[in-house]
Amino acid sequence: MSRSKQFLSDNAARVHPAVWDAMRAADEADAPYDGDALSQRMDAAFSDLFGRECVALWVATGTAANCLALGTMVQPHGGVVCHREAHIEMDEGGAPGFYLHGAKLMLAEGEGAKLTPDTIRAVIDSVREGVHQVHPHAISITQASEYGRAYRPAEIAAIADLAKERGLPLHMDGARFANAAAFLGCSAADAAGPVDALSFGCVKNGGMTAEAIVFFDSALADAARFRRKRAGHLQSKGRFLAAQVLAMVEGDLWLANARAANAAAQEIAGAAGDRLMHAVEANELFVRCTAVERETLRAQGFGFYDWGSDAARFVTAWNTQAEDAADLARAVASL
Amino acid sequence: MSRSKQFLSDNAARVHPAVWDAMRAADEADAPYDGDALSQRMDAAFSDLFGRECVALWVATGTAANCLALGTMVQPHGGVVCHREAHIEMDEGGAPGFYLHGAKLMLAEGEGAKLTPDTIRAVIDSVREGVHQVHPHAISITQASEYGRAYRPAEIAAIADLAKERGLPLHMDGARFANAAAFLGCSAADAAGPVDALSFGCVKNGGMTAEAIVFFDSALADAARFRRKRAGHLQSKGRFLAAQVLAMVEGDLWLANARAANAAAQEIAGAAGDRLMHAVEANELFVRCTAVERETLRAQGFGFYDWGSDAARFVTAWNTQAEDAADLARAVASL
Amino acid sequence: MSRSKQFLSDNAARVHPAVWDAMRAADEADAPYDGDALSQRMDAAFSDLFGRECVALWVATGTAANCLALGTMVQPHGGVVCHREAHIEMDEGGAPGFYLHGAKLMLAEGEGAKLTPDTIRAVIDSVREGVHQVHPHAISITQASEYGRAYRPAEIAAIADLAKERGLPLHMDGARFANAAAFLGCSAADAAGPVDALSFGCVKNGGMTAEAIVFFDSALADAARFRRKRAGHLQSKGRFLAAQVLAMVEGDLWLANARAANAAAQEIAGAAGDRLMHAVEANELFVRCTAVERETLRAQGFGFYDWGSDAARFVTAWNTQAEDAADLARAVASL
Amino acid sequence: MSRSKQFLSDNAARVHPAVWDAMRAADEADAPYDGDALSQRMDAAFSDLFGRECVALWVATGTAANCLALGTMVQPHGGVVCHREAHIEMDEGGAPGFYLHGAKLMLAEGEGAKLTPDTIRAVIDSVREGVHQVHPHAISITQASEYGRAYRPAEIAAIADLAKERGLPLHMDGARFANAAAFLGCSAADAAGPVDALSFGCVKNGGMTAEAIVFFDSALADAARFRRKRAGHLQSKGRFLAAQVLAMVEGDLWLANARAANAAAQEIAGAAGDRLMHAVEANELFVRCTAVERETLRAQGFGFYDWGSDAARFVTAWNTQAEDAADLARAVASL
Repeated sequence: MSRSKQFLSDNAARVHPAVWDAMRAADEADAPYDGDALSQRMDAAFSDLFGRECVALWVATGTAANCLALGTMVQPHGGVVCHREAHIEMDEGGAPGFYLHGAKLMLAEGEGAKLTPDTIRAVIDSVREGVHQVHPHAISITQASEYGRAYRPAEIAAIADLAKERGLPLHMDGARFANAAAFLGCSAADAAGPVDALSFGCVKNGGMTAEAIVFFDSALADAARFRRKRAGHLQSKGRFLAAQVLAMVEGDLWLANARAANAAAQEIAGAAGDRLMHAVEANELFVRCTAVERETLRAQGFGFYDWGSDAARFVTAWNTQAEDAADLARAVASL
Repeated sequence: MSRSKQFLSDNAARVHPAVWDAMRAADEADAPYDGDALSQRMDAAFSDLFGRECVALWVATGTAANCLALGTMVQPHGGVVCHREAHIEMDEGGAPGFYLHGAKLMLAEGEGAKLTPDTIRAVIDSVREGVHQVHPHAISITQASEYGRAYRPAEIAAIADLAKERGLPLHMDGARFANAAAFLGCSAADAAGPVDALSFGCVKNGGMTAEAIVFFDSALADAARFRRKRAGHLQSKGRFLAAQVLAMVEGDLWLANARAANAAAQEIAGAAGDRLMHAVEANELFVRCTAVERETLRAQGFGFYDWGSDAARFVTAWNTQAEDAADLARAVASL
Repeated sequence: MSRSKQFLSDNAARVHPAVWDAMRAADEADAPYDGDALSQRMDAAFSDLFGRECVALWVATGTAANCLALGTMVQPHGGVVCHREAHIEMDEGGAPGFYLHGAKLMLAEGEGAKLTPDTIRAVIDSVREGVHQVHPHAISITQASEYGRAYRPAEIAAIADLAKERGLPLHMDGARFANAAAFLGCSAADAAGPVDALSFGCVKNGGMTAEAIVFFDSALADAARFRRKRAGHLQSKGRFLAAQVLAMVEGDLWLANARAANAAAQEIAGAAGDRLMHAVEANELFVRCTAVERETLRAQGFGFYDWGSDAARFVTAWNTQAEDAADLARAVASL
Repeated sequence: MSRSKQFLSDNAARVHPAVWDAMRAADEADAPYDGDALSQRMDAAFSDLFGRECVALWVATGTAANCLALGTMVQPHGGVVCHREAHIEMDEGGAPGFYLHGAKLMLAEGEGAKLTPDTIRAVIDSVREGVHQVHPHAISITQASEYGRAYRPAEIAAIADLAKERGLPLHMDGARFANAAAFLGCSAADAAGPVDALSFGCVKNGGMTAEAIVFFDSALADAARFRRKRAGHLQSKGRFLAAQVLAMVEGDLWLANARAANAAAQEIAGAAGDRLMHAVEANELFVRCTAVERETLRAQGFGFYDWGSDAARFVTAWNTQAEDAADLARAVASL
């Protein structure tokens, strides 16, 4: 398989050279766990990025980031309102059940895998009073969504208003937060909105083995520190994770990489036209095509996942080559 | 602080160049998670090393390795017999409680933080029949122990016999397994003995962010795969973890690094003489000394942890320089 | 409120005199927990009833019965296939999440809140291979269902065949098992079919504070004994729970009481005609009626729950008086 | 075995006639769960008893009471300081691990199974800062202790002061609270002191199947309501549990029964003299005696548990007959 025609996922793409450099520079021994100089710099780096005080912890995976964040918000007898197709529901092997000690995911609807105040209310308001049903303790949204759709700042604000009204903390799964921010053309702060905690993705965006959990409420972060250790996610050479995250966010690498991936996606989107199941706003494309058409594409060397029986999913990455995107665009147009 | 006089811990030491090289070579994108070629090679590498069929999974930390291994052996209503000073009891932030869903650590005694059949029996046999007390479901030992002591093959065999007799699986925490094997001068197979699962340490021995769980019972491994994902420990660029582990075990780097660390420890041990609280068999030294003496050492630039109020702990690493070990030896001798 | 016109629920009805008598007779002190003579008789009583060897444990509630049974079948990283409207999903306050340590309820469809092999397969077969999604570990059905519908023996057999083919244990929530058996006119064995564990309801059927979990696989029961204690459900004066259960099942009180409740339901059903949302097969009636109509009924002294905005739920009990059922039938007919 | 010579345990004794009467009176159907008139009266009954506002929930067992209370105080990553011989550690089948989602019991010393500020401090102060060790989230004491010893009000106050200073809620396991209060000759309020939650025992004191959890902090009670349901402990005919509890505490039955049991214990204690391992302050006696002596007693028809190899435990109950106590006293004196 030619790697250059690989559109399976951004989550296995190469590591960006600047990330490698930062890791190399971190080799010299320092204090273990998160006592090192780099880990100590993370709060400031994210506070700068978001323009408000925050506490940031590195962690190895998006699943751990999401679940550690939610674990600080949700009592075991509570629930998390999320989209029916949210990653935490569909693709984390039951990790929320583990990290939240049996708390429940309360599944809501919404076009493009995006929640709205109405779809959230439909779930929340159907819960009977009393103790016989699980009550919501938090809301989780995904930026960009599982279908590559970006929440506009006003949409997040509306959800945050509802969350506040109901006394529910708001979490954002930002595995592809950078792609959403790049699409929206707004600041990180505006792309996140007033969430209480954000899983800030790096691995899909040129990192290697580090994501960040950003807490805008330091009390939540205190609990998360204990929970991270308890989950076996406090790595002793944490400086190598901090190095990756800082390489991403102390400059604009996070944004530049996302822009590159988005641009490649747009090139292909232009060719896919009516075949697109969802507007392409980040770096994922869901393209209607038959099994025969998929076979045609694979015969040309393109790698991608089937999406059900009538579609394919293509994902671009920070290092998708322009010529490869163009090749795929042509191939899709020729179907 | 001069890094070269650092004896705080091996767990923050530099990464070995061969590990770096292996990681670099793994950069080219491959299948995500553990579907890549390197991850696929791990079973064979460990089967070779141990001379029996095994299944090996990478994971980020020793805590996760221990807890995922034990989680396959222990029902939530059961317990794990371990030493009162075992890492799982003392230093994992309650991770066994989390991963084992509330199962109990059943604390046993033993000189040098090593269990014996007698101390294990003392715990097991004191459990009343019936459901009012937690019954043991597994036994966990540490090679080398938390005081740097190595179990001899015959000692492991005696414990394994007891475990078998009682129908209990046997786990070995091998965060410093290499140091034990280097000290014993025996094969990996003999240093592990007939355990059912082994947490094979790399991070303290020149690795960066990868340990291995080695299952000698493939049924346990199947459950562990699901549990690893569920714990947020299935990393998407797992090839970088596999690369580290393979760099360690496909040659004899694991042994060479441990020998170097052990040699440095022996150099210092020779100078510490009667001050030693425990025979030095791996790369840790527990040295009786007063607060004033510790101050004297720190004034010379040596870094180490206090061990209670009357002792200090020194840990050597694969990259401890001979001259630094010699310096510390002289300094200790001069106290 | 006149109790005699109470159709809110069978779960708060009076205790049957024979149950009282049995409890009184159990007052004399005996061995604590389940070591008493009555508790020791339960296995035999249920083995007689079902015509095959079984192990039976008393427990205080149906929720505990369901969750303790399922807890023996399901690993924390697995799931339970159940109906979208099953009691374990809708009305147990998240108890399955607690007892199953975060395992997932996998929701299936089916008319009348009854699963079919097809609806089960739709859930099971949509799970992707690998560890990213939760896999089913068991199936749970409810006899009679949450809409008062009874599984016919052939329907259970078909589900059991599928369960066996997929290697999944089968659980039956029998909170109203007696009502289903009474309706089916078959033996207890046929009404249960080849399930592996059954929550046998007594409280709704004239009992006070005792249900039974019946295990047809003794290995499951062994784990359940420990789990019952661990859940704080091993009562020290268990003889009073055993007395209730034995009063029910050593004769045919369980059946007689259910027949009485079913007969009252049939009387009302005859009057409700087209208003019925579900065929009345047990002792629950779901009756379409407007808010005004419900007000009319309540003004006549009848107690019942609203069922959404367009219906009402009536439940009869073992002690529903014929004249009260007739009164309600007339009142419904007159709407 | 003659029941009248039974000193095995108070937990299997007969049910007091007044409790039976109250249960009978509760038979008439009422609202299910805890919506009935009796359950609604519990807060007031306990507020009267303790002279301060409290919220009281019935529950079937002391294990459930203890664990539900502690579950509201302790995060899963925290710990509970308790005595090494506390019931929650020794005799609840791991229930705290289950209910507290893996939180840790942190074992402290103390004569007579009673904690002191010093023994608590020894545990708390040995925890290293940071996330590598479990930190305490609550303290639990037992009144009367597992060796039948009563905390004096000043002792409780001293522990409560420490708890407050460290920000830790304080729980009291009062399975034999009545016996302690009877011994102390003080009010319930003084026997409980300023604890945040109390497991108030009834079953050992003439009840059948009901204990109470008394919360002096209503926020804790709110969580406990959800947790009780989630644990399968919200019984639908809760009125029968409320009836038992109210029969105990709306008059002075709780105290009268405890006085009777204590008096019987004192009678025997007088005869045991130097054989007593612990001062007899409640209704338990720990009596040094050889296997031969125990055999002698058993040959006379007395029932009791061995306590290790050199002692026996005798427990009196509310209904221990004066002549039986006198018989045992004579028999012990004659050894």
